[in-house]
Amino acid sequence: MSFWRVLKSNCGTVSMSVSLPVFYSLSFLTAVIAFLFALYLYLWVKRERVENRRIEDVSRLIAEGARTFMRREYRILAIFASVVAVIIFLLLPSPIWNGNILDNILMVIAYIAGTVLSAIAGKIGIMVATLSNGRTAEKAQHGLKDAFLIGFRGGAVMGLLVVGCSLFGVAAVLMVAGDPTILLGFSFGASSLALFAKAGGGIFTKTADVAADLTGKVELGIAEDDPRNPAVIADNVGDNVGDVAGMGADLFDSNVAAMASSLVIAFSLSDAASAIEMVFCYSILGLIASMIGIATAKVGKDGNPTRALNSSTYVTTAVYLVLTAAATALLEGFSWRIWIAAATGLLVGVVIGITTDYFTDDTKPIVKRVAKASATGPAFTILSGISYGFISAIPAMAGIAISALVAYLVCDPIGPGYAIFGIAMSAVGMLSIVGMIISNDAYGPIVDNARGLAEMGGLGEETIRVADELDSAGNTVKAVTKGFSISAAGLTVISLLGAFMSEANAALEAAGLPLIAGFDIMDPKVFFGILTGASVPALFSAMLILGVDRNAERMVSEIHRQFNSIIGLKEGNAEPDYGTCIDIATTGALKELIPAGLAAIGATIIVGFIAGPSAIGGFLLGNIVSGLLIALLMSNAGGLWDNSKKYVEAGNEGGKGSDAHKSAVIGDTVGDPFKDTAGPSINTQITVVSLTASLCSALFVAFSIF
Amino acid sequence: MSFWRVLKSNCGTVSMSVSLPVFYSLSFLTAVIAFLFALYLYLWVKRERVENRRIEDVSRLIAEGARTFMRREYRILAIFASVVAVIIFLLLPSPIWNGNILDNILMVIAYIAGTVLSAIAGKIGIMVATLSNGRTAEKAQHGLKDAFLIGFRGGAVMGLLVVGCSLFGVAAVLMVAGDPTILLGFSFGASSLALFAKAGGGIFTKTADVAADLTGKVELGIAEDDPRNPAVIADNVGDNVGDVAGMGADLFDSNVAAMASSLVIAFSLSDAASAIEMVFCYSILGLIASMIGIATAKVGKDGNPTRALNSSTYVTTAVYLVLTAAATALLEGFSWRIWIAAATGLLVGVVIGITTDYFTDDTKPIVKRVAKASATGPAFTILSGISYGFISAIPAMAGIAISALVAYLVCDPIGPGYAIFGIAMSAVGMLSIVGMIISNDAYGPIVDNARGLAEMGGLGEETIRVADELDSAGNTVKAVTKGFSISAAGLTVISLLGAFMSEANAALEAAGLPLIAGFDIMDPKVFFGILTGASVPALFSAMLILGVDRNAERMVSEIHRQFNSIIGLKEGNAEPDYGTCIDIATTGALKELIPAGLAAIGATIIVGFIAGPSAIGGFLLGNIVSGLLIALLMSNAGGLWDNSKKYVEAGNEGGKGSDAHKSAVIGDTVGDPFKDTAGPSINTQITVVSLTASLCSALFVAFSIF
Repeated sequence: MSFWRVLKSNCGTVSMSVSLPVFYSLSFLTAVIAFLFALYLYLWVKRERVENRRIEDVSRLIAEGARTFMRREYRILAIFASVVAVIIFLLLPSPIWNGNILDNILMVIAYIAGTVLSAIAGKIGIMVATLSNGRTAEKAQHGLKDAFLIGFRGGAVMGLLVVGCSLFGVAAVLMVAGDPTILLGFSFGASSLALFAKAGGGIFTKTADVAADLTGKVELGIAEDDPRNPAVIADNVGDNVGDVAGMGADLFDSNVAAMASSLVIAFSLSDAASAIEMVFCYSILGLIASMIGIATAKVGKDGNPTRALNSSTYVTTAVYLVLTAAATALLEGFSWRIWIAAATGLLVGVVIGITTDYFTDDTKPIVKRVAKASATGPAFTILSGISYGFISAIPAMAGIAISALVAYLVCDPIGPGYAIFGIAMSAVGMLSIVGMIISNDAYGPIVDNARGLAEMGGLGEETIRVADELDSAGNTVKAVTKGFSISAAGLTVISLLGAFMSEANAALEAAGLPLIAGFDIMDPKVFFGILTGASVPALFSAMLILGVDRNAERMVSEIHRQFNSIIGLKEGNAEPDYGTCIDIATTGALKELIPAGLAAIGATIIVGFIAGPSAIGGFLLGNIVSGLLIALLMSNAGGLWDNSKKYVEAGNEGGKGSDAHKSAVIGDTVGDPFKDTAGPSINTQITVVSLTASLCSALFVAFSIF
Repeated sequence: MSFWRVLKSNCGTVSMSVSLPVFYSLSFLTAVIAFLFALYLYLWVKRERVENRRIEDVSRLIAEGARTFMRREYRILAIFASVVAVIIFLLLPSPIWNGNILDNILMVIAYIAGTVLSAIAGKIGIMVATLSNGRTAEKAQHGLKDAFLIGFRGGAVMGLLVVGCSLFGVAAVLMVAGDPTILLGFSFGASSLALFAKAGGGIFTKTADVAADLTGKVELGIAEDDPRNPAVIADNVGDNVGDVAGMGADLFDSNVAAMASSLVIAFSLSDAASAIEMVFCYSILGLIASMIGIATAKVGKDGNPTRALNSSTYVTTAVYLVLTAAATALLEGFSWRIWIAAATGLLVGVVIGITTDYFTDDTKPIVKRVAKASATGPAFTILSGISYGFISAIPAMAGIAISALVAYLVCDPIGPGYAIFGIAMSAVGMLSIVGMIISNDAYGPIVDNARGLAEMGGLGEETIRVADELDSAGNTVKAVTKGFSISAAGLTVISLLGAFMSEANAALEAAGLPLIAGFDIMDPKVFFGILTGASVPALFSAMLILGVDRNAERMVSEIHRQFNSIIGLKEGNAEPDYGTCIDIATTGALKELIPAGLAAIGATIIVGFIAGPSAIGGFLLGNIVSGLLIALLMSNAGGLWDNSKKYVEAGNEGGKGSDAHKSAVIGDTVGDPFKDTAGPSINTQITVVSLTASLCSALFVAFSIF
């Protein structure tokens, strides 16, 4: 049904409240305010000067390297997106020879808009991040306070852009197309980009990290950020590429998917107009709450940056809950039941963050236990890390399960379809603070780079200590944001399952076939889908990890070549060729990523054409279950190993150079591609697969074998 | 409905064929033949003499150690079983204050019979295995031929006992109780024992192995089987406890569960009598085929023992397919459709075995790749092993999915209920060659022990070479049997899901509530169950691995204590105290196992009482999906690391002592608890949870909160 028709009919008949189309229109205004706020923060960061020449040079190299990666990535993405756009034009939402050609054109436009908006947000975000790192390093000479603010505000630009773009994009696509199905195309565009940015960036960053460590720390015995190492700039670029652009694209993707699936479901409800308004209203209030949180973030002269980051997250959460409660109380057609679903989603997200912290923070027992196991030998580092990684997945999985159950029980009484709408809204609720989460996450690579720059620029012990403190806060928060983003993706994909069912039923209805009432696990077609779907994240993550291995090997050979052929490099009298390393990381990352992405999408299409839409329902479920488990295991075990290495380096269990340290370093090396490549890429894989399924549902209905 | 009534009514009305009750009665006879064949093989092995004094002594120590473990284990199991028996008496199949007290008594008897039969099979099996190891070592002085036969026939005693006992037990319980629900109690008894034998034995064996390696090879630099190491006997005991008794109990459990669930479903079919007869007929033919396979297993003077083991598996498979086809063609009421389901299950099992072999055999590329990665560093051993481990899970998961789908598509047209019966029969088909599989598996520890004994007895280079060849065949086959047993458990548990639904519906019908038509994944209660169920194998395996770590630490302290306090031990002038090490491994194993087992059972009961039978349907599914994935990952990665270490030791990638070797040893140490503790214990966990759910279904219906 057309969007305008729904809005009009509902405004005319169901409710006369003037509030109804208000929030939908306000989305544009709020997005613009967020953009202006981001511009203000950018100018605020830019105002600072960089005076240390060395820092300026290196910082420029990092910025250039990041640009190189992004340019190359976007070029390949453009080819990929063009192919996909042609396929969409021919086949989606229905084959061009059967359906309305205008819908196909709109779908193509929406798809391209999704990739372009996400790409712009990523591009600007990374530009500001690479602008902020040198400035943070310089400011660290004068203490924590201002250095923290530069790092944080530099990251907040990305946070605001991502949420602003997603809100703006969803509202605009809905306005132009008037049909929520087209939104799925927009969301698919965002997902394609996220696949490249997150998984490609993840391979890039770990290729550089692993190769730099292997040649530098292990073979040559030089420090992590030693400028003689040809891979050192690539390593710093990688942090930005993986954590700023990658995580931003990932959460853009989740956020759009959560809104899109809520809206697809909202359109099928009895009071569709109110439901649509609620989606927009809650999203707007989330953005406002994030802006307030960002504005209030600060740290005292001798304060604690971790606490500062956490407390602004709590401020955002509280403001959001109050604002949405007020809106629900004041506005006609807004249901308290749905508020409860959204609030539960958000609170569960916060609790998941806290439990992740328990498993990865080095002041808590688990990190210490893994460090202790490292003293026995590297095998025990690995065994204990994987065991606690598995255990750490459980609170998040239980949290998602509980939040879905609560949303169902609370919203089901409203009427048919509201149970699944409640689940979608709990994903929207969980993602409401995403602006704040991205800001915290992007802060990480900025201060991590700043630490390296302070060392390379020779800013002295005290400055490095300050930078270290900022960096350690970044690491702690990073583990939390990863747990959060995986869980948010999990909850979102459940609502995408609902969206898939709506789409499949629309196609079945059009074909005059019986509708799907649900996906029964006792139906062997569904069961077949579940097992094959569960295999996909295993395959995808394995391919990415093996890709990092292969790519790192290539880069290690290049580093060896440079040390052998560039005279004076070892002694520090000649510059290494940083660019070639960046090139290798870039080309290799994209080469390794594409087969993995195609395998996931291909499996979905094959299962769909073999066993039809009911098998795909199972496929998506299996994909979610094993994807969540593997993603949480990998992210958390990786964070755990990283921090337990740092804990040993801080002088525990024998400190640096001890056997425990050697074991802990092995754990950390295993953890690197776990936590920065495979683990967090799985959410993107899940979303891509879910959207592929929804978009192809009509084709599966028409052409499946069984 | 009573068994006899079904048989009689069907004989009287549906079919007049005299064949109908025949196979049911023949079960007893076939079981007795199997027992006699086992007795013959036992006497054949016993006839051989052990002449080397040292071998006799050590062999006796191993046998005594195994007895110590079994005695202690059975004592704790007896306490556990008594508690469970009281609970069963009070509550199952329905609370004693509501139902028929006779049913509860029968259920208790069936439960105890299940544990006792499995315990007897394990006890005798391990006795014969520990009798065969010394004899195999002695015979190895005269070449492969006879040594192979002793090793294989010693293992075959266990294979025959397990299949014979399960067939006998199922038939006897059905005869006494006349009600298939009681069979689930028998199956639960088998599962409880398997949990102790497999998971407890798994912790035992890896505790001893890891502690022996850490202190012997790493700290003291002495050989693996050096008699000065106090843990060396415990290590040899462990192989028997884990692989003979553990694997036997595990496959006893799967085999009984497959038969029990087929029979529960068979009773609800339109032509129940024929279906019941088919279950017994196919099981009998499987046992006969296994006996033929065992009888034909032999190796030429310079033949290849791996090929000998594999070819008798293929002989068994072929004989089974021919015999069942003949029975299906000749007998009235036997359907070709069901034959296809059973044959597909068996063929899929064989294919899974072959793909497992591809990932773990050191003549194939994957093992070589991991060995190559080891040259870069231990982190790459781990990363590549885990990646290929994940990929190796996919063929098995796809195979199970395909076999379920084929069974469904082929059997659904027969009539209502036949689709799920077909799936149950494909599990029966896959498990038909289980006698052969156990024989191959039990061969492993016998020849592994024999190799150690040949070394300790100083039988010379040539004998050790022969023993090595026998041992290497055992390792190759072991990886295959593990993949097979995990997949068989996976398929069995799907039919247990069907059995659970039958049971829950019977309870719902009795309570006058609406029946369950299926488990819809869009129902958030089911979804809640799926996510919580998927968490259980993660928790269970993590607890077991952490348990091995803790237990190995205890044992390492004890070994240190002995080396410090026993004068002359290091020089080989004094005997170590082997018994204390065995005690520590035993007590610790049981202490670590019980919380893990209770966590799995407890989670099932909690979810059932919170969210009712539909949530439990989801719970079982989630449990199967994540259980299969984790179990296959762990078993295959473990086998892969083990063989890639051996590949390096054979002189590749720098051979023994190289960096690649050090990395490969770390991989192997990580793999040990993966492949011998956690991985293969997960099938038992899945079966225990499924049976707990089926048995408690009436309670969930009556008392759940939502």
